[in-house]
Amino acid sequence: MTSAEPEARQRGVHPQQAVESFLRELSSRHPGIAVLAAGPETRPYRYDAATAKSALHDDAGQGPAVVFPETAGQVQDVVRLAAGLGITVVPRGAGTGLSGGAAARPGQVVVSTGRLARVIEISPLDEVAVVEPGIINAELNAQLAPYGLFYAPDPASFDISTIGGNIATNAGGLRCAKYGVTRESVLALDVVLADGSLVSVGHRSIKGVTGLDLTSLFVGSEGVLGIVVSATVRLRPLPVARRTVTAFFDSTAAGAHGLAAITGSPVRPVAIEFFDTPSLDSIDSHSGTSLRGRGAALVLVELDGYGIDEQSADLATALTAAGARVTVETDDDGARLWELRRSGRGLPRHKWYIGEDIAVPKSRLAEVYAAFPVLEARFGVDISAVSHAGDGNLHPLITLDRLPGDDPAQPPAALQEAATELVRVALSLGGTVSGEHGIGSLKQDWAALELSPRIRQAQHAIKAALDPHSLLNPGKAI
Amino acid sequence: MTSAEPEARQRGVHPQQAVESFLRELSSRHPGIAVLAAGPETRPYRYDAATAKSALHDDAGQGPAVVFPETAGQVQDVVRLAAGLGITVVPRGAGTGLSGGAAARPGQVVVSTGRLARVIEISPLDEVAVVEPGIINAELNAQLAPYGLFYAPDPASFDISTIGGNIATNAGGLRCAKYGVTRESVLALDVVLADGSLVSVGHRSIKGVTGLDLTSLFVGSEGVLGIVVSATVRLRPLPVARRTVTAFFDSTAAGAHGLAAITGSPVRPVAIEFFDTPSLDSIDSHSGTSLRGRGAALVLVELDGYGIDEQSADLATALTAAGARVTVETDDDGARLWELRRSGRGLPRHKWYIGEDIAVPKSRLAEVYAAFPVLEARFGVDISAVSHAGDGNLHPLITLDRLPGDDPAQPPAALQEAATELVRVALSLGGTVSGEHGIGSLKQDWAALELSPRIRQAQHAIKAALDPHSLLNPGKAI
Repeated sequence: MTSAEPEARQRGVHPQQAVESFLRELSSRHPGIAVLAAGPETRPYRYDAATAKSALHDDAGQGPAVVFPETAGQVQDVVRLAAGLGITVVPRGAGTGLSGGAAARPGQVVVSTGRLARVIEISPLDEVAVVEPGIINAELNAQLAPYGLFYAPDPASFDISTIGGNIATNAGGLRCAKYGVTRESVLALDVVLADGSLVSVGHRSIKGVTGLDLTSLFVGSEGVLGIVVSATVRLRPLPVARRTVTAFFDSTAAGAHGLAAITGSPVRPVAIEFFDTPSLDSIDSHSGTSLRGRGAALVLVELDGYGIDEQSADLATALTAAGARVTVETDDDGARLWELRRSGRGLPRHKWYIGEDIAVPKSRLAEVYAAFPVLEARFGVDISAVSHAGDGNLHPLITLDRLPGDDPAQPPAALQEAATELVRVALSLGGTVSGEHGIGSLKQDWAALELSPRIRQAQHAIKAALDPHSLLNPGKAI
Repeated sequence: MTSAEPEARQRGVHPQQAVESFLRELSSRHPGIAVLAAGPETRPYRYDAATAKSALHDDAGQGPAVVFPETAGQVQDVVRLAAGLGITVVPRGAGTGLSGGAAARPGQVVVSTGRLARVIEISPLDEVAVVEPGIINAELNAQLAPYGLFYAPDPASFDISTIGGNIATNAGGLRCAKYGVTRESVLALDVVLADGSLVSVGHRSIKGVTGLDLTSLFVGSEGVLGIVVSATVRLRPLPVARRTVTAFFDSTAAGAHGLAAITGSPVRPVAIEFFDTPSLDSIDSHSGTSLRGRGAALVLVELDGYGIDEQSADLATALTAAGARVTVETDDDGARLWELRRSGRGLPRHKWYIGEDIAVPKSRLAEVYAAFPVLEARFGVDISAVSHAGDGNLHPLITLDRLPGDDPAQPPAALQEAATELVRVALSLGGTVSGEHGIGSLKQDWAALELSPRIRQAQHAIKAALDPHSLLNPGKAI
């Protein structure tokens, strides 16, 4: 039963009829608006990238209805009409989320931002862009490049994910250690609230403290407080120079401990990616490279800005002293290595797997890696992780061989148990369930391990203050 | 009538008796706790730095009661006891605020953080410090210096204001253009809520997206949502080099327009301070300098980091092309100039004056300066401003000569009218009422010019969600 059903049923309306009425009324008010009626062909909207594998086994039932508004006014009408009919609303960008945040159920209405995707303004003098939420991150950067500017947040999905989705999850990425997460690049938002009102929050300047900081509250709220229809984002000048530095260590443990040498140096890289031994093996196997010939663990660093030679030298000195074999890479080799980071491993589609997104205080990263063998022995799984080491954010991949008798729709319990135990390890080290992917629908149980009942109550009270009938993306995030 | 009185009266208790009961009960539970009973000697707690001049004419009546808890548990008991007696609570750091946010009334209880001022931990490996709210900003930095680290936010009050007060106002400062405002340096908080519960929000890592971002919501909330009892703040390595560059222009207008040359260059300074002609005159007159001999407007820039010579050269090229006379200053001269920026002007104590804190998109700064002569002619006032030009934040000083017949407790109406009109100018340019000082009690009317009724309603709904009886700092911020 979807959470939309009870509300509609209370009004004596069958949920399917309510959605049909909704679409009829919406199309009558906005004759040109694109919609998809609920049906088998909207089944993909039940999923996002985290749950896409489940879609392979889903060949029955209906999906939600989907609407494609082109203006803020249309979004307002969608919300008002849905509210009037007791239908809940799920905002959706590109569907690349990794926590089920955009997954919708039959009886719900998906608000796609696919046709709210314009770049409204680029202001080099204010160093801001005003964009609609459906614009793809990489497309925005392509439009900014001629101005010598860029938008910094770079989730791994940057060439397929939307700015709106990035805002909904407060997306991280590789460059956060230097440039911050999405929140640090969002200055102002136009948001449609659950009552259909359109509000503007934030400022076109870096500073601005008039009242509570609602802009930051909307960032990362996974669509449960409002639907972003426009964002003013901060831009930065393209750096005058970039440099890639590699440091190979003799073991995962040596590399994980060696990371502290960067913190101890005066250099603050743009990105610090750490690969353990199995991650390097996996790249070599998937991409035909021979990284393991250079070492058993890799710290891949990007530097940018002024004094790039001095930065490289100081970094090399620090990492060499920590026992690494350090190379300042050529631009071509550097570009290849970053491409391997982003897509060199592939997914173990022939195995059971769960990906995680835990983060810990960066001094505790080595302890997380040290826990992997313990969990492997206990649960019979394999665990490896690439990390955004500059901000303590790991992406462990927990895998288990498929056996001939396995039910393809039913992962073995040991896989989920190992994943939960690894979350507990992160929390025991002062860490968090989710560094950058969000809670969505899939990590609710893990969030409950992290947040106290009083905090969860406060979060629900804030949700109720802005969306008293729980119209927007119910059951997600909090 | 204070807003505490109605509640206490509803319970049939005289507010003064309620406060006496509160102090009696608190002292009985915590025999060692320092308190000041409400009386003439607590009158200073009716004011902060914004209203301190009014204190000079206040020689009657009582102040609020004041308590000095030393532990989070004591803060919890203060809040619980006050709630039980219908007494409202005003958190207070050093009282250096510039919007009346910490000003309390008779019948209220002030919670001073003066004895919650420890540095609990400095972690060079995680690049964080865990501190209590009463620590002075400069004192924290003094303790960090031996580690080669610093806490970036630097409001002009840094050597007298507390981290807790900085958090309450989301304080800005000079270095925000590069290092962000206070929010960007606050990773986690322990907060006592209005029901006396103690909660932890945020993470010890840069990343973390489990649930709504309550940390950012508490930052800048001026004590209306909770009382911060501990903060985990982000640290950064001291830069490898620093350099001060000056650019003198022939007029205020030329300088204000010349600022765009910095944005157009690849250099991103730590701080960009802009002085108009009257500001330079005022420094020369107050400090015995001769800056006006060098030009009629000054752009004072601090650079830091690697490649400092290249940065200086690129910046000098850009500003020279914009018509400036550029000097790369010696370290000593640079230090003197920054000292003049912070305290070279003095306050026009022999005149009527109002200070403002407006911010505009940085491309519109020149238009604000162009509005000064218009407002001067219309209202008979004088206006000058030093700006944090990197983030569009101006501090206009509006002055009016005192006349012999003026009532010392009653500023002329033209002064306030000119100030309000200048706020309207900022808003018409897409700006904000307050860049970094906050709304407090003094800027409520101006905030209403900026925020829509729906936004104000949303802010009050969030306040009610966390503090349903409006116990914490009522009448401030929102």
